[in-house]
Amino acid sequence: MQFTSEQRLDDGVLERGFTLGEIPGILWTPASAPAPLILLSPPPLGLRKTYPRLVARARHSAADGFATATIELPGSGDRPRWPAAEQALADLRRAMEAREPVSDEIIDALILPLVDKAVPEWQAALDALLSLPEIGGPVGYSGGVISIGTRLAAVEPRIAAAVLFAGSFVPRAMFEEARRVTIPLHVLLQWDDEGNDRQAALDLFDAFGSKEKTLHANMGGHTGVPQSAGDEAGRFLARHLK
Amino acid sequence: MQFTSEQRLDDGVLERGFTLGEIPGILWTPASAPAPLILLSPPPLGLRKTYPRLVARARHSAADGFATATIELPGSGDRPRWPAAEQALADLRRAMEAREPVSDEIIDALILPLVDKAVPEWQAALDALLSLPEIGGPVGYSGGVISIGTRLAAVEPRIAAAVLFAGSFVPRAMFEEARRVTIPLHVLLQWDDEGNDRQAALDLFDAFGSKEKTLHANMGGHTGVPQSAGDEAGRFLARHLK
Repeated sequence: MQFTSEQRLDDGVLERGFTLGEIPGILWTPASAPAPLILLSPPPLGLRKTYPRLVARARHSAADGFATATIELPGSGDRPRWPAAEQALADLRRAMEAREPVSDEIIDALILPLVDKAVPEWQAALDALLSLPEIGGPVGYSGGVISIGTRLAAVEPRIAAAVLFAGSFVPRAMFEEARRVTIPLHVLLQWDDEGNDRQAALDLFDAFGSKEKTLHANMGGHTGVPQSAGDEAGRFLARHLK
Repeated sequence: MQFTSEQRLDDGVLERGFTLGEIPGILWTPASAPAPLILLSPPPLGLRKTYPRLVARARHSAADGFATATIELPGSGDRPRWPAAEQALADLRRAMEAREPVSDEIIDALILPLVDKAVPEWQAALDALLSLPEIGGPVGYSGGVISIGTRLAAVEPRIAAAVLFAGSFVPRAMFEEARRVTIPLHVLLQWDDEGNDRQAALDLFDAFGSKEKTLHANMGGHTGVPQSAGDEAGRFLARHLK
Protein backbone atom coordinates (compact mmCIF):
# COMPACT_ATOMS: atom_id res chain seq x y z
CA MET A 1 0.00 0.00 0.00
CA GLN A 2 1.52 3.26 -1.15
CA PHE A 3 0.19 6.70 -0.33
CA THR A 4 0.13 8.91 -3.42
CA SER A 5 -1.49 12.13 -2.21
CA GLU A 6 -2.48 13.82 1.01
CA GLN A 7 -4.73 16.72 1.91
CA ARG A 8 -6.30 17.98 5.11
CA LEU A 9 -10.04 18.77 4.61
CA ASP A 10 -11.46 21.87 6.31
CA ASP A 11 -13.07 19.77 9.07
CA GLY A 12 -9.68 18.30 10.00
CA VAL A 13 -10.21 14.98 8.22
CA LEU A 14 -7.03 13.69 6.54
CA GLU A 15 -7.67 12.44 3.00
CA ARG A 16 -4.97 10.28 1.42
CA GLY A 17 -4.96 8.68 -2.00
CA PHE A 18 -3.19 5.34 -2.18
CA THR A 19 -2.52 2.43 -4.48
CA LEU A 20 -2.69 -1.20 -3.52
CA GLY A 21 -0.76 -2.83 -6.30
CA GLU A 22 -2.56 -1.36 -9.30
CA ILE A 23 -5.79 -0.58 -7.47
CA PRO A 24 -6.36 3.08 -6.55
CA GLY A 25 -8.03 3.91 -3.27
CA ILE A 26 -8.74 6.69 -0.77
CA LEU A 27 -8.40 6.68 3.01
CA TRP A 28 -10.03 9.30 5.24
CA THR A 29 -8.99 9.42 8.88
CA PRO A 30 -10.35 11.54 11.74
CA ALA A 31 -8.10 13.40 14.18
CA SER A 32 -8.73 10.77 16.88
CA ALA A 33 -6.64 7.64 16.43
CA PRO A 34 -6.67 4.69 16.38
CA ALA A 35 -10.10 4.78 14.76
CA PRO A 36 -12.44 1.90 13.84
CA LEU A 37 -12.71 1.43 10.10
CA ILE A 38 -15.57 1.53 7.62
CA LEU A 39 -14.90 -0.04 4.22
CA LEU A 40 -16.97 2.08 1.83
CA SER A 41 -17.40 0.16 -1.41
CA PRO A 42 -18.56 2.44 -4.22
CA PRO A 43 -21.22 1.70 -6.82
CA PRO A 44 -19.60 0.49 -10.09
CA LEU A 45 -19.30 3.98 -11.56
CA GLY A 46 -15.72 4.70 -10.58
CA LEU A 47 -14.27 6.62 -7.66
CA ARG A 48 -13.98 9.84 -9.65
CA LYS A 49 -17.69 10.00 -10.53
CA THR A 50 -18.83 9.04 -7.06
CA TYR A 51 -16.24 11.08 -5.13
CA PRO A 52 -18.68 13.78 -3.90
CA ARG A 53 -20.95 11.15 -2.34
CA LEU A 54 -18.03 9.15 -0.93
CA VAL A 55 -16.30 12.11 0.69
CA ALA A 56 -19.59 13.34 2.17
CA ARG A 57 -20.12 9.97 3.81
CA ALA A 58 -16.50 9.71 4.92
CA ARG A 59 -16.71 13.13 6.61
CA HIS A 60 -19.94 12.15 8.32
CA SER A 61 -18.30 8.96 9.57
CA ALA A 62 -15.19 10.87 10.67
CA ALA A 63 -17.41 13.10 12.81
CA ASP A 64 -18.56 9.87 14.52
CA GLY A 65 -14.91 8.88 15.05
CA PHE A 66 -14.53 6.45 12.14
CA ALA A 67 -11.87 6.08 9.48
CA THR A 68 -13.23 5.31 6.00
CA ALA A 69 -11.46 3.61 3.11
CA THR A 70 -12.51 2.88 -0.45
CA ILE A 71 -10.90 1.17 -3.43
CA GLU A 72 -11.81 1.20 -7.11
CA LEU A 73 -13.88 -1.84 -8.14
CA PRO A 74 -12.53 -4.17 -10.85
CA GLY A 75 -13.48 -2.75 -14.25
CA SER A 76 -14.51 0.66 -12.84
CA GLY A 77 -12.82 4.05 -13.27
CA ASP A 78 -9.48 3.64 -15.05
CA ARG A 79 -9.14 -0.05 -14.17
CA PRO A 80 -9.11 -2.43 -17.15
CA ARG A 81 -12.38 -3.98 -18.22
CA TRP A 82 -12.49 -7.64 -19.21
CA PRO A 83 -14.19 -8.85 -22.38
CA ALA A 84 -16.77 -11.12 -20.70
CA ALA A 85 -17.96 -8.26 -18.48
CA GLU A 86 -18.21 -5.91 -21.46
CA GLN A 87 -20.28 -8.53 -23.29
CA ALA A 88 -22.55 -9.09 -20.27
CA LEU A 89 -23.07 -5.33 -19.90
CA ALA A 90 -23.94 -5.03 -23.59
CA ASP A 91 -26.38 -7.95 -23.25
CA LEU A 92 -27.92 -6.35 -20.18
CA ARG A 93 -28.43 -3.02 -21.93
CA ARG A 94 -29.95 -4.71 -24.94
CA ALA A 95 -32.39 -6.69 -22.76
CA MET A 96 -33.37 -3.60 -20.77
CA GLU A 97 -33.85 -1.44 -23.85
CA ALA A 98 -36.00 -4.18 -25.37
CA ARG A 99 -37.87 -4.36 -22.04
CA GLU A 100 -37.11 -8.07 -21.89
CA PRO A 101 -36.52 -9.84 -18.59
CA VAL A 102 -32.82 -9.97 -17.75
CA SER A 103 -31.82 -13.64 -17.87
CA ASP A 104 -29.96 -15.47 -15.11
CA GLU A 105 -27.13 -16.03 -17.61
CA ILE A 106 -26.63 -12.28 -18.12
CA ILE A 107 -26.79 -11.58 -14.38
CA ASP A 108 -24.31 -14.37 -13.60
CA ALA A 109 -21.90 -13.20 -16.33
CA LEU A 110 -22.14 -9.61 -15.10
CA ILE A 111 -21.94 -10.08 -11.34
CA LEU A 112 -20.16 -13.33 -10.44
CA PRO A 113 -16.74 -12.46 -11.99
CA LEU A 114 -16.98 -9.01 -10.39
CA VAL A 115 -17.57 -10.62 -6.98
CA ASP A 116 -14.78 -13.16 -7.57
CA LYS A 117 -12.33 -10.36 -8.38
CA ALA A 118 -13.48 -7.73 -5.88
CA VAL A 119 -13.73 -9.73 -2.65
CA PRO A 120 -10.03 -10.76 -2.44
CA GLU A 121 -9.10 -7.15 -3.27
CA TRP A 122 -11.15 -5.84 -0.36
CA GLN A 123 -9.55 -8.46 1.87
CA ALA A 124 -6.08 -7.37 0.72
CA ALA A 125 -7.07 -3.75 1.37
CA LEU A 126 -8.22 -4.75 4.84
CA ASP A 127 -4.86 -6.44 5.54
CA ALA A 128 -3.01 -3.28 4.52
CA LEU A 129 -5.35 -0.85 6.31
CA LEU A 130 -5.34 -2.77 9.59
CA SER A 131 -1.55 -2.65 9.62
CA LEU A 132 -1.65 1.16 9.86
CA PRO A 133 -1.26 2.51 13.42
CA GLU A 134 -4.11 5.02 12.90
CA ILE A 135 -6.61 2.19 12.20
CA GLY A 136 -7.90 -0.11 14.91
CA GLY A 137 -10.92 -1.75 16.38
CA PRO A 138 -13.85 -3.38 14.62
CA VAL A 139 -14.48 -3.06 10.89
CA GLY A 140 -17.76 -2.20 9.20
CA TYR A 141 -18.63 -2.49 5.53
CA SER A 142 -20.96 -0.28 3.52
CA GLY A 143 -21.28 -1.09 -0.11
CA GLY A 144 -23.03 -0.45 -3.35
CA VAL A 145 -22.95 -3.87 -5.07
CA ILE A 146 -24.93 -6.14 -2.77
CA SER A 147 -23.37 -9.39 -4.04
CA ILE A 148 -19.85 -8.17 -3.18
CA GLY A 149 -21.05 -7.24 0.32
CA THR A 150 -22.83 -10.55 0.72
CA ARG A 151 -19.76 -12.63 -0.20
CA LEU A 152 -17.48 -10.45 1.92
CA ALA A 153 -19.82 -10.68 4.92
CA ALA A 154 -19.96 -14.46 4.48
CA VAL A 155 -16.21 -15.10 4.19
CA GLU A 156 -14.40 -12.29 6.04
CA PRO A 157 -14.56 -12.69 9.84
CA ARG A 158 -12.96 -9.29 10.48
CA ILE A 159 -16.13 -7.51 9.30
CA ALA A 160 -18.44 -7.00 12.26
CA ALA A 161 -21.47 -5.34 10.63
CA ALA A 162 -22.52 -4.31 7.13
CA VAL A 163 -24.77 -1.84 5.32
CA LEU A 164 -25.86 -3.25 1.96
CA PHE A 165 -27.63 -1.47 -0.90
CA ALA A 166 -30.19 -3.66 -2.66
CA GLY A 167 -29.82 -1.90 -5.97
CA SER A 168 -28.11 -4.31 -8.33
CA PHE A 169 -28.87 -7.65 -9.95
CA VAL A 170 -28.39 -10.68 -7.72
CA PRO A 171 -27.20 -14.03 -9.13
CA ARG A 172 -29.14 -17.01 -7.80
CA ALA A 173 -25.98 -18.45 -6.30
CA MET A 174 -25.80 -15.49 -3.89
CA PHE A 175 -28.91 -16.65 -2.02
CA GLU A 176 -26.98 -19.66 -0.78
CA GLU A 177 -24.06 -17.43 0.26
CA ALA A 178 -26.52 -15.07 2.00
CA ARG A 179 -27.63 -17.92 4.30
CA ARG A 180 -24.07 -18.15 5.63
CA VAL A 181 -23.99 -14.49 6.69
CA THR A 182 -24.44 -14.09 10.44
CA ILE A 183 -23.26 -10.53 11.20
CA PRO A 184 -25.74 -7.68 11.84
CA LEU A 185 -27.00 -6.28 8.53
CA HIS A 186 -28.72 -3.05 7.54
CA VAL A 187 -30.16 -3.34 4.03
CA LEU A 188 -31.30 -0.28 2.07
CA LEU A 189 -33.84 -0.77 -0.70
CA GLN A 190 -35.16 1.91 -3.03
CA TRP A 191 -38.74 0.69 -3.41
CA ASP A 192 -39.37 2.12 -6.88
CA ASP A 193 -35.85 1.62 -8.23
CA GLU A 194 -36.47 1.26 -11.96
CA GLY A 195 -33.28 -0.76 -12.55
CA ASN A 196 -33.78 -3.13 -9.65
CA ASP A 197 -35.79 -6.27 -9.03
CA ARG A 198 -37.66 -5.53 -5.80
CA GLN A 199 -38.74 -9.12 -5.24
CA ALA A 200 -35.15 -10.38 -5.62
CA ALA A 201 -34.06 -7.81 -3.03
CA LEU A 202 -36.77 -8.94 -0.59
CA ASP A 203 -35.88 -12.59 -1.19
CA LEU A 204 -32.20 -11.87 -0.56
CA PHE A 205 -33.05 -10.03 2.66
CA ASP A 206 -35.10 -13.04 3.71
CA ALA A 207 -32.21 -15.40 2.90
CA PHE A 208 -29.59 -13.69 5.07
CA GLY A 209 -28.79 -15.90 8.03
CA SER A 210 -28.20 -12.99 10.40
CA LYS A 211 -30.32 -12.95 13.55
CA GLU A 212 -30.12 -9.18 13.51
CA LYS A 213 -31.03 -7.71 10.16
CA THR A 214 -33.09 -4.69 9.21
CA LEU A 215 -34.50 -3.63 5.86
CA HIS A 216 -35.13 0.06 5.21
CA ALA A 217 -37.17 0.68 2.07
CA ASN A 218 -37.61 4.21 0.78
CA MET A 219 -39.05 6.04 -2.18
CA GLY A 220 -37.07 8.16 -4.61
CA GLY A 221 -35.54 5.95 -7.34
CA HIS A 222 -32.10 4.41 -7.56
CA THR A 223 -30.05 7.43 -6.46
CA GLY A 224 -32.73 9.04 -4.26
CA VAL A 225 -31.82 7.53 -0.89
CA PRO A 226 -33.18 10.09 1.60
CA GLN A 227 -30.82 11.88 3.96
CA SER A 228 -32.61 10.32 6.93
CA ALA A 229 -31.95 6.81 5.54
CA GLY A 230 -28.23 7.57 5.19
CA ASP A 231 -28.19 8.87 8.76
CA GLU A 232 -29.89 5.70 10.01
CA ALA A 233 -27.32 3.53 8.21
CA GLY A 234 -24.59 5.59 9.86
CA ARG A 235 -26.17 5.10 13.28
CA PHE A 236 -26.40 1.34 12.62
CA LEU A 237 -22.65 1.16 12.00
CA ALA A 238 -21.91 3.38 14.98
CA ARG A 239 -24.03 1.13 17.23
CA HIS A 240 -22.23 -2.02 16.11
CA LEU A 241 -18.65 -0.77 15.87
CA LYS A 242 -18.33 0.98 19.20
CA MET B 1 -63.58 15.26 27.85
CA GLN B 2 -63.28 14.87 31.60
CA PHE B 3 -60.05 14.42 33.49
CA THR B 4 -60.38 11.66 36.06
CA SER B 5 -56.88 11.38 37.53
CA GLU B 6 -53.60 13.25 37.57
CA GLN B 7 -50.06 12.38 38.53
CA ARG B 8 -46.66 13.94 37.90
CA LEU B 9 -44.11 11.32 36.75
CA ASP B 10 -40.57 11.56 38.10
CA ASP B 11 -39.30 13.09 34.84
CA GLY B 12 -41.79 15.96 35.15
CA VAL B 13 -44.29 14.56 32.63
CA LEU B 14 -47.91 15.16 33.67
CA GLU B 15 -50.07 12.03 33.21
CA ARG B 16 -53.82 12.52 33.29
CA GLY B 17 -56.52 9.91 32.87
CA PHE B 18 -59.66 11.12 31.11
CA THR B 19 -62.93 9.93 29.71
CA LEU B 20 -64.39 11.00 26.40
CA GLY B 21 -68.01 10.00 26.79
CA GLU B 22 -67.59 6.39 27.83
CA ILE B 23 -64.13 5.96 26.34
CA PRO B 24 -61.20 5.99 28.77
CA GLY B 25 -57.96 7.63 27.71
CA ILE B 26 -54.62 8.95 28.97
CA LEU B 27 -52.86 12.22 28.16
CA TRP B 28 -49.17 12.83 28.84
CA THR B 29 -47.87 16.39 28.55
CA PRO B 30 -44.30 17.68 28.84
CA ALA B 31 -43.41 20.75 30.88
CA SER B 32 -43.10 22.86 27.71
CA ALA B 33 -46.47 24.03 26.35
CA PRO B 34 -48.14 24.29 23.94
CA ALA B 35 -46.75 20.99 22.66
CA PRO B 36 -47.40 19.22 19.35
CA LEU B 37 -49.44 16.06 19.80
CA ILE B 38 -48.85 12.39 19.05
CA LEU B 39 -51.93 10.18 19.00
CA LEU B 40 -50.67 6.83 20.26
CA SER B 41 -53.16 4.14 19.32
CA PRO B 42 -52.60 0.95 21.32
CA PRO B 43 -52.69 -2.62 20.02
CA PRO B 44 -56.09 -4.21 20.73
CA LEU B 45 -55.05 -5.58 24.12
CA GLY B 46 -56.42 -2.83 26.31
CA LEU B 47 -54.73 0.18 27.87
CA ARG B 48 -54.13 -1.58 31.15
CA LYS B 49 -52.14 -4.45 29.60
CA THR B 50 -50.13 -2.19 27.31
CA TYR B 51 -49.62 0.66 29.81
CA PRO B 52 -45.89 -0.04 30.43
CA ARG B 53 -45.13 0.22 26.69
CA LEU B 54 -47.39 3.24 26.22
CA VAL B 55 -45.96 5.24 29.11
CA ALA B 56 -42.40 4.44 28.01
CA ARG B 57 -43.12 5.82 24.56
CA ALA B 58 -45.00 8.84 25.92
CA ARG B 59 -42.04 9.72 28.20
CA HIS B 60 -39.67 9.35 25.26
CA SER B 61 -41.87 11.65 23.18
CA ALA B 62 -42.19 14.14 26.06
CA ALA B 63 -38.40 14.35 26.17
CA ASP B 64 -38.61 15.42 22.51
CA GLY B 65 -41.22 18.07 23.44
CA PHE B 66 -44.37 16.16 22.41
CA ALA B 67 -47.64 15.55 24.19
CA THR B 68 -49.03 12.03 23.75
CA ALA B 69 -52.62 10.86 24.03
CA THR B 70 -54.23 7.45 23.82
CA ILE B 71 -57.78 6.12 24.05
CA GLU B 72 -59.10 2.61 24.56
CA LEU B 73 -60.04 0.90 21.29
CA PRO B 74 -63.64 -0.30 20.81
CA GLY B 75 -64.00 -3.76 22.35
CA SER B 76 -60.67 -3.56 24.22
CA GLY B 77 -60.04 -3.28 27.96
CA ASP B 78 -63.33 -2.77 29.84
CA ARG B 79 -65.18 -1.47 26.76
CA PRO B 80 -68.11 -3.64 25.63
CA ARG B 81 -67.47 -6.24 22.96
CA TRP B 82 -70.00 -6.72 20.18
CA PRO B 83 -71.26 -10.14 19.14
CA ALA B 84 -70.04 -10.00 15.52
CA ALA B 85 -66.49 -9.18 16.66
CA GLU B 86 -66.55 -12.00 19.22
CA GLN B 87 -67.68 -14.38 16.49
CA ALA B 88 -64.98 -13.17 14.08
CA LEU B 89 -62.32 -13.57 16.76
CA ALA B 90 -63.52 -17.11 17.50
CA ASP B 91 -63.47 -17.92 13.76
CA LEU B 92 -59.95 -16.47 13.49
CA ARG B 93 -58.66 -18.55 16.40
CA ARG B 94 -60.22 -21.68 15.01
CA ALA B 95 -58.66 -21.09 11.57
CA MET B 96 -55.24 -20.37 13.06
CA GLU B 97 -55.33 -23.38 15.38
CA ALA B 98 -56.32 -25.58 12.42
CA ARG B 99 -53.50 -23.91 10.43
CA GLU B 100 -56.02 -22.98 7.76
CA PRO B 101 -55.68 -19.77 5.76
CA VAL B 102 -57.67 -16.93 7.35
CA SER B 103 -60.45 -16.07 4.92
CA ASP B 104 -61.25 -12.58 3.68
CA GLU B 105 -64.67 -12.92 5.33
CA ILE B 106 -63.11 -13.45 8.77
CA ILE B 107 -60.65 -10.56 8.29
CA ASP B 108 -63.40 -8.22 7.11
CA ALA B 109 -65.70 -9.17 10.00
CA LEU B 110 -62.86 -8.70 12.49
CA ILE B 111 -61.29 -5.48 11.24
CA LEU B 112 -63.80 -3.37 9.27
CA PRO B 113 -66.29 -2.79 12.15
CA LEU B 114 -63.33 -1.97 14.41
CA VAL B 115 -62.09 0.65 11.92
CA ASP B 116 -65.63 2.03 11.44
CA LYS B 117 -66.02 2.48 15.20
CA ALA B 118 -62.49 3.58 16.10
CA VAL B 119 -61.77 6.26 13.51
CA PRO B 120 -64.61 8.65 14.52
CA GLU B 121 -63.58 8.15 18.15
CA TRP B 122 -60.01 9.20 17.40
CA GLN B 123 -61.35 12.21 15.51
CA ALA B 124 -63.54 13.15 18.51
CA ALA B 125 -60.51 12.74 20.78
CA LEU B 126 -58.55 15.00 18.45
CA ASP B 127 -61.29 17.67 18.64
CA ALA B 128 -61.17 17.56 22.44
CA LEU B 129 -57.38 17.43 22.73
CA LEU B 130 -56.77 20.30 20.33
CA SER B 131 -59.10 22.50 22.38
CA LEU B 132 -56.73 22.22 25.37
CA PRO B 133 -54.37 25.19 25.75
CA GLU B 134 -51.40 22.88 26.43
CA ILE B 135 -51.79 21.18 23.02
CA GLY B 136 -50.88 22.90 19.78
CA GLY B 137 -49.11 22.52 16.50
CA PRO B 138 -49.11 19.57 14.11
CA VAL B 139 -50.45 16.15 15.01
CA GLY B 140 -48.78 12.81 14.45
CA TYR B 141 -50.29 9.35 14.73
CA SER B 142 -48.59 6.16 15.86
CA GLY B 143 -50.74 3.09 15.96
CA GLY B 144 -50.94 -0.61 16.43
CA VAL B 145 -53.84 -1.61 14.13
CA ILE B 146 -52.69 -0.64 10.66
CA SER B 147 -56.19 -0.44 9.15
CA ILE B 148 -57.28 2.15 11.73
CA GLY B 149 -54.18 4.23 10.98
CA THR B 150 -54.71 3.88 7.24
CA ARG B 151 -58.33 5.10 7.37
CA LEU B 152 -57.43 7.90 9.77
CA ALA B 153 -54.51 9.04 7.60
CA ALA B 154 -56.80 8.99 4.56
CA VAL B 155 -59.70 10.96 6.07
CA GLU B 156 -58.29 13.22 8.81
CA PRO B 157 -56.44 16.24 7.41
CA ARG B 158 -55.17 17.35 10.84
CA ILE B 159 -52.77 14.38 10.95
CA ALA B 160 -49.45 15.39 9.39
CA ALA B 161 -47.44 12.16 9.60
CA ALA B 162 -48.01 8.60 10.81
CA VAL B 163 -46.12 5.60 12.12
CA LEU B 164 -47.96 2.38 11.30
CA PHE B 165 -47.32 -1.16 12.57
CA ALA B 166 -47.86 -3.83 9.92
CA GLY B 167 -48.81 -6.49 12.40
CA SER B 168 -52.52 -7.17 11.95
CA PHE B 169 -54.76 -8.59 9.24
CA VAL B 170 -55.65 -6.17 6.44
CA PRO B 171 -59.06 -6.28 4.71
CA ARG B 172 -58.83 -6.01 0.92
CA ALA B 173 -60.89 -2.81 1.01
CA MET B 174 -58.05 -1.07 2.89
CA PHE B 175 -55.75 -1.20 -0.16
CA GLU B 176 -58.06 1.23 -1.94
CA GLU B 177 -58.08 3.52 1.12
CA ALA B 178 -54.28 3.28 1.30
CA ARG B 179 -54.02 4.80 -2.20
CA ARG B 180 -55.70 7.95 -0.89
CA VAL B 181 -53.10 8.47 1.87
CA THR B 182 -50.64 11.23 0.99
CA ILE B 183 -48.96 12.14 4.30
CA PRO B 184 -45.43 10.95 5.16
CA LEU B 185 -45.55 7.39 6.52
CA HIS B 186 -43.15 5.27 8.52
CA VAL B 187 -44.21 1.61 8.45
CA LEU B 188 -42.77 -0.95 10.86
CA LEU B 189 -42.87 -4.61 9.86
CA GLN B 190 -41.71 -7.53 11.98
CA TRP B 191 -40.33 -9.77 9.23
CA ASP B 192 -40.93 -13.10 10.98
CA ASP B 193 -44.14 -12.14 12.76
CA GLU B 194 -45.88 -15.49 13.11
CA GLY B 195 -49.38 -13.95 13.27
CA ASN B 196 -48.91 -11.61 10.34
CA ASP B 197 -49.10 -11.93 6.56
CA ARG B 198 -45.80 -10.45 5.34
CA GLN B 199 -46.89 -10.25 1.71
CA ALA B 200 -50.08 -8.37 2.64
CA ALA B 201 -47.96 -5.90 4.62
CA LEU B 202 -45.61 -5.36 1.66
CA ASP B 203 -48.59 -4.96 -0.70
CA LEU B 204 -50.18 -2.41 1.63
CA PHE B 205 -46.92 -0.45 1.85
CA ASP B 206 -46.78 -0.47 -1.94
CA ALA B 207 -50.38 0.78 -2.15
CA PHE B 208 -49.94 3.86 0.03
CA GLY B 209 -50.19 6.97 -2.13
CA SER B 210 -47.64 8.92 -0.06
CA LYS B 211 -44.63 10.25 -1.96
CA GLU B 212 -42.63 9.96 1.26
CA LYS B 213 -42.97 6.55 2.84
CA THR B 214 -40.44 4.29 4.48
CA LEU B 215 -40.67 0.65 5.49
CA HIS B 216 -38.49 -0.63 8.33
CA ALA B 217 -38.48 -4.40 8.60
CA ASN B 218 -36.85 -6.09 11.58
CA MET B 219 -36.45 -9.52 13.09
CA GLY B 220 -37.73 -10.55 16.48
CA GLY B 221 -41.39 -11.67 16.21
CA HIS B 222 -44.59 -9.74 16.80
CA THR B 223 -43.59 -7.98 20.01
CA GLY B 224 -39.83 -7.89 19.37
CA VAL B 225 -39.51 -4.46 17.72
CA PRO B 226 -35.88 -3.49 18.46
CA GLN B 227 -35.13 -0.41 20.52
CA SER B 228 -33.35 1.15 17.53
CA ALA B 229 -36.50 0.74 15.39
CA GLY B 230 -38.61 2.50 18.03
CA ASP B 231 -36.03 5.30 18.19
CA GLU B 232 -36.12 5.68 14.39
CA ALA B 233 -39.92 5.92 14.43
CA GLY B 234 -39.64 8.61 17.10
CA ARG B 235 -37.13 10.54 14.99
CA PHE B 236 -39.46 10.26 11.98
CA LEU B 237 -42.28 11.92 13.93
CA ALA B 238 -39.94 14.54 15.37
CA ARG B 239 -38.72 15.40 11.83
CA HIS B 240 -42.23 15.84 10.49
CA LEU B 241 -43.92 17.56 13.42
CA LYS B 242 -41.36 20.26 14.20
